[in-house]
Amino acid sequence: MSITAPEGFVAGGLACGIKASGAPDLALVATDDARAVTAAGVFTSNLAAAAPVTVSRAHLEATGGRAAAVIVSSGNANAATGARGAADAERMCALVGEGLGVDARGVLICQTGLIGIPLPMAPIEAGIPTLVAARAAGPVAAQQAATAIMTTDVVRKEVLVHGRGFTVGGMAKGAAMLAPNMATMLAVLTTDAACHPAALQAALAGAVDGTFNRMTVDGCTSTNDTVLVLASGRAGEPTTPDALTEALTEACGTLAGLMAADAEGGSRVVHVVVSGAASDDDAHRAARKVADSNLVKCSVNGEDPYWGRVVSELGSAGVAFDIGLVEIAYGDTVVCRGGVAADHDDKAVRTHMASAHVEIRCRLGLGTGTAAVMGVDLGHGYIDENRTTS
Amino acid sequence: MSITAPEGFVAGGLACGIKASGAPDLALVATDDARAVTAAGVFTSNLAAAAPVTVSRAHLEATGGRAAAVIVSSGNANAATGARGAADAERMCALVGEGLGVDARGVLICQTGLIGIPLPMAPIEAGIPTLVAARAAGPVAAQQAATAIMTTDVVRKEVLVHGRGFTVGGMAKGAAMLAPNMATMLAVLTTDAACHPAALQAALAGAVDGTFNRMTVDGCTSTNDTVLVLASGRAGEPTTPDALTEALTEACGTLAGLMAADAEGGSRVVHVVVSGAASDDDAHRAARKVADSNLVKCSVNGEDPYWGRVVSELGSAGVAFDIGLVEIAYGDTVVCRGGVAADHDDKAVRTHMASAHVEIRCRLGLGTGTAAVMGVDLGHGYIDENRTTS
Repeated sequence: MSITAPEGFVAGGLACGIKASGAPDLALVATDDARAVTAAGVFTSNLAAAAPVTVSRAHLEATGGRAAAVIVSSGNANAATGARGAADAERMCALVGEGLGVDARGVLICQTGLIGIPLPMAPIEAGIPTLVAARAAGPVAAQQAATAIMTTDVVRKEVLVHGRGFTVGGMAKGAAMLAPNMATMLAVLTTDAACHPAALQAALAGAVDGTFNRMTVDGCTSTNDTVLVLASGRAGEPTTPDALTEALTEACGTLAGLMAADAEGGSRVVHVVVSGAASDDDAHRAARKVADSNLVKCSVNGEDPYWGRVVSELGSAGVAFDIGLVEIAYGDTVVCRGGVAADHDDKAVRTHMASAHVEIRCRLGLGTGTAAVMGVDLGHGYIDENRTTS
Repeated sequence: MSITAPEGFVAGGLACGIKASGAPDLALVATDDARAVTAAGVFTSNLAAAAPVTVSRAHLEATGGRAAAVIVSSGNANAATGARGAADAERMCALVGEGLGVDARGVLICQTGLIGIPLPMAPIEAGIPTLVAARAAGPVAAQQAATAIMTTDVVRKEVLVHGRGFTVGGMAKGAAMLAPNMATMLAVLTTDAACHPAALQAALAGAVDGTFNRMTVDGCTSTNDTVLVLASGRAGEPTTPDALTEALTEACGTLAGLMAADAEGGSRVVHVVVSGAASDDDAHRAARKVADSNLVKCSVNGEDPYWGRVVSELGSAGVAFDIGLVEIAYGDTVVCRGGVAADHDDKAVRTHMASAHVEIRCRLGLGTGTAAVMGVDLGHGYIDENRTTS
């Protein structure tokens, strides 16, 4: 029980026929009384943003940050589909609105799947009324919704966080490595906390920046990435201004961890931690450069503690850097100190490299900037998943 | 016959014992009279630059752009080796200088191989005098040199360009995908053209910018990348100021093409051409984003014309972009027009995707900026080559 755990929400999921496989592909999250509540969203920075992104942004702007429902479909991204794609996404919101008795602008939308293919509207037109009618409270409905947004995810991704006086629930799919042809991460959150739209938007943006934006699978930014949150207000206001950000960050962090761990073709998660950088921004850039490096990712796949590639990526990250000050550790074992090889316990490093979570710690020795980025290794599975769409 | 084809140069190569395999690992290019001639170099922008890069830069600066020889070793990058590494590189130049009877600063050095391991100086100390003594004119010596700089290159890379009244010869190794643990590209060029150091430096920088800097294998910038040129002056001055740049560009372009075609694990070369960008800089950034995309590279590996990933990369390249104006073609066949799928000859596209050179042409419809970047696909071989150093 996750997305329906906070007070005031219902959900549902079914297979309407977008996916040729017949797997569930349509999900709904709505308020239990079909009334609009405070809502916020964070969207992809991709300028080729898909129709659902454009439509959800416009709806949030039109309502000043309020929504009664989120409709999610999987199997077709409705991206690079032009004016027809925008009309199709609007039509989906209108159908949900009709069923719930709310304005279409009170409905938000997320979609994931193949890019550049017109949306099959016939099964969707038939599916939405059924889905709206079947919406329900409780854990089974939450699981149905979380299942229907999966693409090649092996594990269903749900989260429940107990905040101070309120709860946050959530579901997600992605990220890229999971998604052979659907390079997308989607997350929908619910909370019973009470707050104004601006406060909810700020809390969500902060939570996303510290979690989903610190994760990389292959450095690709999808056309459809979306994180949405609805806040019913049933539990009253959070006890402190930061409590909401804290709980949303915990929820998003857990979902991000589930995504990285479920990355197909990735046998292990890589945590790159950079400290001692000239600034936090430098630290983030350096950590991302290491985590996105195909050479470093291949080394992790092969359980090879080849720190030479790490120092090479740090040196070409575009940040302040002095090789004579660099220290690199795998887990707790320092393998490079002062920019040269350090005597170390080879067995300890090999054991660490064989674990499911590999830590690469880089100390730049220049300042107090720190950052952590979560990535994955690069193995045959990633290529096998992504070389063909059929 | 390549590196020794221009008048005034000798060369040689041998196995001194840096590589455990016993393969050739030490190469020399020198003027035939052991006198310093005009010289220039372009080096990696990596701030973790290896000792040979630091030493060659310093030597060119000290002499004002003159050199009598280049010593190249393979099997150990002499990178992340601290003060000892710098002393070792200086020592190698001094040994060559002693043999030729020139100042050590008249000798330049390139190295490629594993990072972070001290250079084995005993075999090098023994090998250099032998190599210097054995230096010779003619094609066999040139081939020996070009062979001794190879790492996992399958094909020896040599070039000979006939300029207007002069010739340019060259040899190269790399790039990254070729080089499991030695993510490096090296190139040494010779010419009998006469020119001042500043003119040679400008011509080389222009040639590198239009060729090696328009190639990407995995987006990694090595600690050791170096391109050097020596100009003997025996053929007199080039007929026009641009003739030198033109000939060097042709030589570098040919070597870059050989590198991409020989990329291990890469079954095909990808040419990404962006036109209609707001600026040439935008076009270059967009083309590089597409060529470096793991998702696009996997599609090319699978011969799958999935243009949705191309449009997604263009939209997240950080350049001016309007999806409604985008046109994408594989070879001559347009598959996306106005940002949506275009009816096209599917068989023509499939045939093109199965060829050794795949072209992805992107027209942004915004301005006159154009650029081309050469990349490779991503297959199992790249991972197999790079997952372990042993």
